[in-house]
Amino acid sequence: MNEQHHLNVIENTNRKQRVAEDQLAFGKEFTDHMFVMDYSTEKGWHHPRITPYEPITLDPAAMIFHYGQTVFEGLKAYRTEDDRILLFRPEKNFQRMNRSSERLSIPLLDEKLVLTYLEELLRIEKEWVPKTAGYSLYIRPFIIATEPNLSLAPSNTYQFYIILSPVGSYYREGIHPVKIFVEEEFTRAVRGGTGMAKTAGNYSAAYIAQQRATDKGYSQVLWLDGVEKKYIEEVGSMNVFFKIGEEVVTPLLNGSILEGITRLSIIELLKDWNVPVVERRVSIEEIFQAHKEGIVEEVFGTGTAAVVSPVGELTWNDEQMIINNGHTGKLSKKLYETLTAIQTGKQQDPYGWTVEIKE
Amino acid sequence: MNEQHHLNVIENTNRKQRVAEDQLAFGKEFTDHMFVMDYSTEKGWHHPRITPYEPITLDPAAMIFHYGQTVFEGLKAYRTEDDRILLFRPEKNFQRMNRSSERLSIPLLDEKLVLTYLEELLRIEKEWVPKTAGYSLYIRPFIIATEPNLSLAPSNTYQFYIILSPVGSYYREGIHPVKIFVEEEFTRAVRGGTGMAKTAGNYSAAYIAQQRATDKGYSQVLWLDGVEKKYIEEVGSMNVFFKIGEEVVTPLLNGSILEGITRLSIIELLKDWNVPVVERRVSIEEIFQAHKEGIVEEVFGTGTAAVVSPVGELTWNDEQMIINNGHTGKLSKKLYETLTAIQTGKQQDPYGWTVEIKE
Ligand SMILES: Cc1ncc(COP(=O)(O)O)c(C=O)c1O
Ligand SMILES: Cc1ncc(COP(=O)(O)O)c(C=O)c1O
Repeated sequence: MNEQHHLNVIENTNRKQRVAEDQLAFGKEFTDHMFVMDYSTEKGWHHPRITPYEPITLDPAAMIFHYGQTVFEGLKAYRTEDDRILLFRPEKNFQRMNRSSERLSIPLLDEKLVLTYLEELLRIEKEWVPKTAGYSLYIRPFIIATEPNLSLAPSNTYQFYIILSPVGSYYREGIHPVKIFVEEEFTRAVRGGTGMAKTAGNYSAAYIAQQRATDKGYSQVLWLDGVEKKYIEEVGSMNVFFKIGEEVVTPLLNGSILEGITRLSIIELLKDWNVPVVERRVSIEEIFQAHKEGIVEEVFGTGTAAVVSPVGELTWNDEQMIINNGHTGKLSKKLYETLTAIQTGKQQDPYGWTVEIKE
Repeated sequence: MNEQHHLNVIENTNRKQRVAEDQLAFGKEFTDHMFVMDYSTEKGWHHPRITPYEPITLDPAAMIFHYGQTVFEGLKAYRTEDDRILLFRPEKNFQRMNRSSERLSIPLLDEKLVLTYLEELLRIEKEWVPKTAGYSLYIRPFIIATEPNLSLAPSNTYQFYIILSPVGSYYREGIHPVKIFVEEEFTRAVRGGTGMAKTAGNYSAAYIAQQRATDKGYSQVLWLDGVEKKYIEEVGSMNVFFKIGEEVVTPLLNGSILEGITRLSIIELLKDWNVPVVERRVSIEEIFQAHKEGIVEEVFGTGTAAVVSPVGELTWNDEQMIINNGHTGKLSKKLYETLTAIQTGKQQDPYGWTVEIKE
């Protein structure tokens, strides 16, 4: 590790008043410190540091404000019952961040080195990892283009940040199925676009559809492919699975779907359990047809926030389908329980997925 | 105008060292002042002010850094030979900004009021409008979501900025045709997406294709529609026109194309000149076919930056077409000269397009 990668720590001597754990909302409280690193074309990534959590100051012409050159990640740190702190497959997040950066013409990070910086930040902030069951410390790494220049070209300077937010349980009243609206008008992503990247523009572009679905009483939208408006892509910002008869089906990674780490883990779990699982194109028509035949047993979304989110109802134009009588399916429940048990150390991790933050 | 819309001016007493006009690059120098206004759900848009040009300070969790909820505009102020300052159809920019905001779930501005703020800013900064022929003051209005919250939902707070940048001529060596590469792999925008909005994410998403085109010796890419990869959408970040025989054709506004103000003005000019002009779907195949028949007379891009940018060569897979022997066409030249003459007050404006900044 050369000089420019030496990690500096500037301690925050002015610690925050903590919000009671049962008052935590998602992504509104942040810890005392954050991680920052700079990039310039001359020096590459340099000057990694842990500093007090503090405002970012940028020129009004900084490229992030104009052309959206930015990527982010989302993962969680969990506290075990015996007070250890675990991450879940964090290397996958930094690998995906680099794939996102490639699409957005952002310089790549050293994935392994960045993980050691995150670990150091978590050692400093370990008291912030909630103790209540179901709670966790949400980790948000992100890169922003900082060059003050209105030219349409990749920035010559960037900053990489990691901020931490203690968060409550996604399921305060226990895991429960949601109602989903199949979106026909708006498109989340398309072949050749940025759907496979975790980049800002994909998310605000989806608000309008989400708002209309909420107004109609649905909790999320199901996105169809941008080309034919026929094939299923994702649910809200989750990947999606269907249990049809004895088989589990999920849309294949086609370039417009985000490669979820929960998705990957679920595929691996199912294979380990000898449950047939296939990644392929799935049309919305096929699902409604299978439902008419009575073989759609379970539908669920997957992602870091909810882990597994069962779908109780799907509405597509005038057609409505109720899944498993609106109850959480057996397999959905088992996947949720297994994954959360591994993530929180309640169950032994035979897959080597968890990474412990050691002193 | 009520209290919360009263414009405050905080003068910059520390004026900048000016760069010589012949040294100006695009979008790197900014003037002494900027305009800022805040939004909150309680107050709506409020506290408009002109302040010294200064850094923006935001919480690291500010939504602009994570979910890309932002829109922008681009227009120019020109100095006439008799030292007046003119804007070109500025009301169209604020109208388009509001249409962009609608797509991005951003609260709308009072278009007329905002134009008066811009006019006041220009009165203060009038010395910054370059005197050299072909030069201008580029105006960049933009809105960013500022709420510190990682939830996936529209922000409850925003800031609207206007910054000003004196810029050189797009054509330092005179107007000249460019080489364009027809992009087959990457997609700029798709039906149901954000292509009709001027929002950050659209622009950085295009860098990868632009970079590959540059590496191959082209100056811009021609974008095809995201659905069929068949119909022509735009050239780089310009609208595009084809003169085929006696008729001028441009892609119709289908929801994925930006509604250019130069495009609109050119359509209106052509109509006024009794040149047949049609907005319709145009496939890339049709253009290459017409070229084989020898009837593609001129191709040009249009936008605020270049006004009219003639295309001398188009490459699509292995096919290459040379347009008008690589020379600027007669109509392209006439359109360029007429529009720039109106914009700079050299020619009388019979259309009411220019707005003078009066003391
Ligand atoms: C668009 C989108 N799809 C899917 C996911 C699920 O990915 P993961 O399981 O890695 O959290 C996420 C969130 O992370 C996402 O933003
Ligand atoms: C994507 C895109 N298309 C077209 C244009 C041309 O629009 P206008 O003529 O209003 O500058 C612009 C630039 O402003 C643009 O960003």
